[in-house]
Amino acid sequence: MIIAKPLVILCLMITRRHLKELRNLGKKKAREEQGRFLIEGLRMAEEAADSDFEVQEVLFTQAFVESAQGKSLLAKFQKKGPVFTAISERDLEPISETVTAQGIVAVVSNRSYDLEVILQPGKRSLIVGLDAVADPGNLGSMIRSCDWFGVNGMVLGQDSVELCNPKVLRSTMGGLFHLPIIEGVNLPSIISRMKTSGYTIYVADAAGEAYAEDVQYADRAFVIMGNEAHGVSPSLKHSADVRVAVRRYGLAESLNVGVACGVLLSAIRTVSAGGGRQGVHP
Amino acid sequence: MIIAKPLVILCLMITRRHLKELRNLGKKKAREEQGRFLIEGLRMAEEAADSDFEVQEVLFTQAFVESAQGKSLLAKFQKKGPVFTAISERDLEPISETVTAQGIVAVVSNRSYDLEVILQPGKRSLIVGLDAVADPGNLGSMIRSCDWFGVNGMVLGQDSVELCNPKVLRSTMGGLFHLPIIEGVNLPSIISRMKTSGYTIYVADAAGEAYAEDVQYADRAFVIMGNEAHGVSPSLKHSADVRVAVRRYGLAESLNVGVACGVLLSAIRTVSAGGGRQGVHP
Repeated sequence: MIIAKPLVILCLMITRRHLKELRNLGKKKAREEQGRFLIEGLRMAEEAADSDFEVQEVLFTQAFVESAQGKSLLAKFQKKGPVFTAISERDLEPISETVTAQGIVAVVSNRSYDLEVILQPGKRSLIVGLDAVADPGNLGSMIRSCDWFGVNGMVLGQDSVELCNPKVLRSTMGGLFHLPIIEGVNLPSIISRMKTSGYTIYVADAAGEAYAEDVQYADRAFVIMGNEAHGVSPSLKHSADVRVAVRRYGLAESLNVGVACGVLLSAIRTVSAGGGRQGVHP
Repeated sequence: MIIAKPLVILCLMITRRHLKELRNLGKKKAREEQGRFLIEGLRMAEEAADSDFEVQEVLFTQAFVESAQGKSLLAKFQKKGPVFTAISERDLEPISETVTAQGIVAVVSNRSYDLEVILQPGKRSLIVGLDAVADPGNLGSMIRSCDWFGVNGMVLGQDSVELCNPKVLRSTMGGLFHLPIIEGVNLPSIISRMKTSGYTIYVADAAGEAYAEDVQYADRAFVIMGNEAHGVSPSLKHSADVRVAVRRYGLAESLNVGVACGVLLSAIRTVSAGGGRQGVHP
């Protein structure tokens, strides 16, 4: 007979004041000032538990701790030593952004990376820079794509939508926890540093001189995607070694920036693995 | 001296009742019952004016008709013979979905296509089927991508989000007007018909047996994308000739369905043009 080890969690009861503080994290200003953000749902909580991000607090409902998945996740969180707080479904509702927070939210400390960490010395590196991407869903889906295509790091320009915006976090599907991302970077000012560090600069540009599948990508590549309406800003475009376009076969004027990013990353990986038009990459 | 031809537009003044009818088109039920939908903004209105869709009514503000772009667009609409209605900014606001409708909305008749039109006899044809795509932004961005990659037609399954949902329309960036799309189709029931018509069935599946860039695509290809959470339904997966995956290089569990669709279409076009791993397509 197997007896499951009982889960013992010491937890706080929620107070009105505490609830107010948590609701406050729905605001960008509070997130930025406090350097922390809220995540919700089983999937994101699992990713946070597995990551090396600091988890300050885990809040869960009675139903959550009684579920098998809940027990196993809370046991995992225990190793990170957060504050545990019991919360009712009713109190959880105004804190969460989605209809179903699945009985779990957590407060996670923002991580800041140094650009040097992103640039990584070494031979191969694929970095993605986002210049003023405005839509949270687009930013989130690009982080998810970068995670899928094994991008080594991301650099968000100063006019990008906030990384810890709840819609962004949700759309990343956990990607945020898998690769280093820095935000608030003045992109034009880092270009010369990236070039010195051996990077070739590729700018996504519908009017670019080369099609994605025809380019021989350098081992160290920095790929810049632009704003939904205006594309990559002129000064960045000017600094590009290659302006890359996705080949068009129909009538549309443009692709969604998230889709273009995915197509470009797929082309880079395929060409570099020897599947491109111009043969095998050295 | 050149004298511009004056634009003369006979137009109705808006009534309360009329406004109510227009607001009502914000509801799915009304759109379906009346077989028409609202579009807004300069871009979509231009696409509608250039399309072969029937435009029933064009509503515009004083500022719009006084602008050069507005004049030229309204002159274009005159050839389609819609009802013109003058509307104030204030009355326009509750009708439009976006913050800036740019002073123009139009009522467009829904078009229904026969499946035979989509299937097109002839040699080459690329059709995309969407099985229960739930998110309006995803559906819109896939229509936009299909438009970009020159897809010949789209077939939306019965559980798809509504095509004429305002967020879908907006995200298509006019793609809706560029290729035939039918909705409400029982996808499993058309598979045998498509096979008889010479189509090879490709189903997007993260666990698929072939990577997108390694497949030799048939001249007549039907590509099916699935639901955001559950992928393509088992019965459709079962009917596939090839289950196709996007190669993964990182940690993410999946790609956004709109991104996956773009990557797949790009691979199909690149491989078919001779850029694929297994050489030139006959």
